[in-house]
Order: sequence, then C-alpha cells, then structure tokens
Amino acid sequence: MIERKIRIGNLFDFYGELLTDNQKEVIKLYILEDLTLGEISQQLEVSRQAVYDAIRRSEHLLSEYESKLGLIEKFQQHATELQEIKEELDEVEKSVDNEHTKEIIKDIALKIDELIY
Amino acid sequence: MIERKIRIGNLFDFYGELLTDNQKEVIKLYILEDLTLGEISQQLEVSRQAVYDAIRRSEHLLSEYESKLGLIEKFQQHATELQEIKEELDEVEKSVDNEHTKEIIKDIALKIDELIY
Repeated sequence: MIERKIRIGNLFDFYGELLTDNQKEVIKLYILEDLTLGEISQQLEVSRQAVYDAIRRSEHLLSEYESKLGLIEKFQQHATELQEIKEELDEVEKSVDNEHTKEIIKDIALKIDELIY
Repeated sequence: MIERKIRIGNLFDFYGELLTDNQKEVIKLYILEDLTLGEISQQLEVSRQAVYDAIRRSEHLLSEYESKLGLIEKFQQHATELQEIKEELDEVEKSVDNEHTKEIIKDIALKIDELIY
C-alpha cells in the first residue's frame, strides 16, 4: 500500500501538471497529506466512491504518461550515469595535489549533485 | 516558416508520443519528410483543410505539453550546466600530468557529451 503511494507520488512529481485541477487536488490529499478515502470524501464533500474513482483514474493516466514518455526511467538512467561520473571524479581528485585544481573538482562534484537531486 | 517547423519538430521529439497515431503521421510527413500540405493531403487521401487542421491542433497540443511540463526548457538548462562542467573539466585536465588520470578525465568528458546530446 505504501509502495503504491510512493509510486503514485513519484508519477505525480513528473506528470501531475497533466491532470485536471480536481484530480490534482484528490491526489495531493491522498499522497502528500496521506488522508484516507473517507477523510478526502468529507473534506471535498463528495462520495467515497467518487474519491476512489478519481484516484484510480489519475493513477491510470499518470502510468500512461510514463509508459509513453518514460521520463522517470530516463531520469533514473541519467542519475546513474551522473553517479558514475562522480565516482570517476573522486578518483581524479585523489591523484591531484594542486589546491586550485582540487577546488575546481569539488565545484564540479557539487554541480553534479545538483543535477542528480 | 522554417523556424516554426524546427520548433514543432523539437516539440514532437519530446511529446510526440502523446499525440494520436493520425496526428503523429501528419506531423512526420510535414516535419520529418518536409512535405507540403497538398502533398500530405494527396498521400493520406484527405482534404487539404483536414491536414491544415491536424497540424494546427497537434502544434497546439505539443505547445500545451511544453507549457505544463517544460521538458525542453529543463533539458536546455541541464545541457548548459553540463557544458559548464565540461569547461571546468578541461581546466582540470590541463593541470594534470599523470596519464592514467588524464584517461579518466577524457572518459568523464565523453560521458558528459553523451548526456548532452
């Protein structure tokens, strides 16, 4: 259950803007605020069934976007490659004595971290 | 005109999978094969107006995806940052004598190039 919520949250991070305002609202309450279907239904004054349907529909749409665009997969591949670059950079840093060069390497490592996270 | 085609082509690279099969086909003929509306209309056996409408509709959809997800903008920012990293890496390489370390730096530069293009 928690894994499903993490998965929807991840999809929502990437494709949330493609949902309608209503779908976004339900998913935010369900995932970010971690409310139950009952709580969401009370808060939005709609039936529990309507909340359930909106979540299912949104989850389906978000999954479809990922299967078409594959951004999450690409992002993860990208992060893996950047991680490899960082490891090689560590190796370079160890073989360097010059303080100025070490500073540049640290700056590169920082920039790569920003690209990964 | 050519600029508009380049722009649509760029949007199509990122979001083409979100179009219908018909929209994809028209855009491929228009952008990748660079056919005129008349030629597309003959090839697909539909009216010139239908081709025109399909292109306008597809262009509008693709632009909307970019305004919501901003992938092209993010990709360009990412590429700029990777380019900066490469320039710093060049500086590091110049200050390094060790052949093995130079090899690692070249490998990093290659990996970054692959991420940029």
